[in-house]
Amino acid sequence: MAYNSVIIRVELNHAETHFGDVASAIGKAGGDITSIDVIRPGQDTSVRDLTVHVSEETEATLVDLLKTLPGVKVINVSDRTFLAHLGGKISVQPSMPIKNRDDLSRVYTPGVARVCMAIKESPNKAYSLTIKRNTVAVVTDGTAVLGLGDIGPYAAAPVMEGKAMLFKQLAGVDAFPICLDTKDTEEIIRTVKSIAPIFGGINLEDIGSPRCFEIETRLSEELDIPVFHDDQHGTAIVVIAGLLNALKVVGKRMDRVRVVVNGIGAAGVSICKMLLAAGVGTLIPVDKEGTIVQGSRHPSHPMWNWLAEQPAVTTEPGSLKEAIRGADVFIGVSRGNLLSAEDVESMAPDRIVFAMANPQPEIDPSLALPRVRVFATGRSDYPNQINNVLAFPGLFRGALDCRARRFNEPIKLAAARAIASVVSENELNEQYIIPSIFNEEVVAKVRRAVVDTAILTGVARRIPPDFR
Amino acid sequence: MAYNSVIIRVELNHAETHFGDVASAIGKAGGDITSIDVIRPGQDTSVRDLTVHVSEETEATLVDLLKTLPGVKVINVSDRTFLAHLGGKISVQPSMPIKNRDDLSRVYTPGVARVCMAIKESPNKAYSLTIKRNTVAVVTDGTAVLGLGDIGPYAAAPVMEGKAMLFKQLAGVDAFPICLDTKDTEEIIRTVKSIAPIFGGINLEDIGSPRCFEIETRLSEELDIPVFHDDQHGTAIVVIAGLLNALKVVGKRMDRVRVVVNGIGAAGVSICKMLLAAGVGTLIPVDKEGTIVQGSRHPSHPMWNWLAEQPAVTTEPGSLKEAIRGADVFIGVSRGNLLSAEDVESMAPDRIVFAMANPQPEIDPSLALPRVRVFATGRSDYPNQINNVLAFPGLFRGALDCRARRFNEPIKLAAARAIASVVSENELNEQYIIPSIFNEEVVAKVRRAVVDTAILTGVARRIPPDFR
Repeated sequence: MAYNSVIIRVELNHAETHFGDVASAIGKAGGDITSIDVIRPGQDTSVRDLTVHVSEETEATLVDLLKTLPGVKVINVSDRTFLAHLGGKISVQPSMPIKNRDDLSRVYTPGVARVCMAIKESPNKAYSLTIKRNTVAVVTDGTAVLGLGDIGPYAAAPVMEGKAMLFKQLAGVDAFPICLDTKDTEEIIRTVKSIAPIFGGINLEDIGSPRCFEIETRLSEELDIPVFHDDQHGTAIVVIAGLLNALKVVGKRMDRVRVVVNGIGAAGVSICKMLLAAGVGTLIPVDKEGTIVQGSRHPSHPMWNWLAEQPAVTTEPGSLKEAIRGADVFIGVSRGNLLSAEDVESMAPDRIVFAMANPQPEIDPSLALPRVRVFATGRSDYPNQINNVLAFPGLFRGALDCRARRFNEPIKLAAARAIASVVSENELNEQYIIPSIFNEEVVAKVRRAVVDTAILTGVARRIPPDFR
Repeated sequence: MAYNSVIIRVELNHAETHFGDVASAIGKAGGDITSIDVIRPGQDTSVRDLTVHVSEETEATLVDLLKTLPGVKVINVSDRTFLAHLGGKISVQPSMPIKNRDDLSRVYTPGVARVCMAIKESPNKAYSLTIKRNTVAVVTDGTAVLGLGDIGPYAAAPVMEGKAMLFKQLAGVDAFPICLDTKDTEEIIRTVKSIAPIFGGINLEDIGSPRCFEIETRLSEELDIPVFHDDQHGTAIVVIAGLLNALKVVGKRMDRVRVVVNGIGAAGVSICKMLLAAGVGTLIPVDKEGTIVQGSRHPSHPMWNWLAEQPAVTTEPGSLKEAIRGADVFIGVSRGNLLSAEDVESMAPDRIVFAMANPQPEIDPSLALPRVRVFATGRSDYPNQINNVLAFPGLFRGALDCRARRFNEPIKLAAARAIASVVSENELNEQYIIPSIFNEEVVAKVRRAVVDTAILTGVARRIPPDFR
């Protein structure tokens, strides 16, 4: 059951009611008053904002009940989530005030002309003399937003703004939302290339599959700044981080395990690629039509064809139910409630299940938890939340600091290992394979891993001072 | 002569020199030490940053001289303008910290999903629940930056960032620089349309003529947010503001004066349009090929053809020298040093000259000042600086506050009148026809004029609370 904080503005007529009546009515209706602000006091009437913690299901009943109370007028109902969004969630701030004509001539005309010409003569100076050094575009076309689907660029904006907040707070990265009013692959590629000069990196977000593959691949090739589709690789990096630790918990080795990945879309493909890079024993990719086996052909899915060429991919065709039999690990990035208790029980002992479908996992947690050693979901109300927020801030912090040309598989794998390493050997257990997103070590360790690996693989264009 | 503040980092070997020697050497070379910071004190050697005020011409000699002094090592020379640009001049800030999981679930997943769906159901809510309400894109293709020409999108960035600073400081508008890596008209239009959803307005900047006309016109028609090419209309609005006050000073009426506008490019066209909207007596537009007269045809200049259809435009062909004879007002947005003292003397008595070519005005100020009643330039070192900074902050503040669909001629004219009105009747004189950009009344008055006129002309989509 989901709870919200709702702010209810009421006017009380003191001749007909007093606050105690209102409070007890709210309590009886299942609401919990967590704070009261008197907006307008008065002898005859008064206006108050009541912050009430209430379940989504009960909210309407509660408000209706208040409306029937004598002497109570409900002026407005707004919940804290909406209030937090009023006017948007980010702003642009100048680095210094312009106090006088002297300041103005330094940051704007005429002084700025010398800075412009310095960049013109040596374009690399854009990294030191403009915001490029620290700025990332969070780009979406609004076609695959959260679990909501194609809601368009306007409705997608709050997610992008939230992401920009996280970028700044967790990693000091300046991120700006770009919500595209086009769903055309070529148009998206052209637009992002056009606006790239001011940015030091591109975070693609919530762009539908299979369009997202082409867009990311082309932009990575055609731009000289790192491009990262978070829905693919962010999820994959955190899954691999969690899996590395889960394997330690159950005492199995990556090169010996059979791993089913169910749902071979944006995230699924990236998870498969990272598993292969990490040296998985047997990979069993499954989509709606069943297992993708070695040597199979999939005319409309170039990435599936690529998978079918990999030696570690299974040769046994079959349904999901058949694929999961005897598997050590199940990773679901598909739909809710696909698996039964029996499916899970058909897996090998010491089984690991990552059920990441949103909002309903592939198997009901109450069915899965008693039957598996390690269980993880995308949700915050169970242990082991697989959350992209663990990956993208540190990844871009590192990439910006070393001016990485691009992200590559070794960088992503190093990031996953860095996230896993935040959980120490003696902290590690079935309930704790993944650190909290508020753990401050995460960004620092991911950054270090990204910079080290970028230098090692030749995509870094600068050695940050603390790496010299 | 242009002066800069330069910061010179020196290491002094105390056995061979002391600071007095260095200071006197700098003084003799024409430098003025304005501050000293000891970076590393020490017994044998010390490192200091010396801030030195020095002319551009002398700087190199001074530094070379320091290098020859015994016991002095010049470590680095950087000037304050460059230092002000280090790392860029703007940043993105979250509206609130994300302190815990509860905060996170409100501004990001899962809570944000409800906000997304609210916008999906009623797209107008983007104005209250995202940054659209207060955010403007400052868009350039880098082809006509200041007086520097086509320096490209990377080198143009410092100007756009400076503009974003001014937007915020003067009018509380969040502006973000978009530097386009294309010069193609259609591509620019497509790109700006693609990225428009997150923005409440588009400020086009430093885009070459005649491309800028098509781009602005098309974007204004095809987008539902206001689009404004500052190089055209910003300059024009401030010119008209200055001219309204200059005419008061000399006691002439707009509908009786003959006005020469020289240079019919981006700014010139807009100035002509505004003069016509303001009811100018006779307009004499002049470009390199001479006067544009009523009825003439200009196949490659659609805007010139439009001018040639206006009844207030002159019918007398001729050169600039011929056009200026007997004119009451000269407005130059062309090239430096085009006019001689005799040209100015051939104008009508009580003449007004706005010579806005950069950095050299159309006539040397020392020649013009003794010969005209009112003289204005684009420069800050003479009275009456025509500066776009007077216009764009208040224009967008007003347009955002009333969610104007577009800017129109009445809005621009109202903005010009508002700027002019900041100089009161008894302050008004030959040296003071235009307020300072730091005058806080400017933005407030321009905003009010924009909102009033937007409501009146039907382009406002919201009545701000203080207008109800």
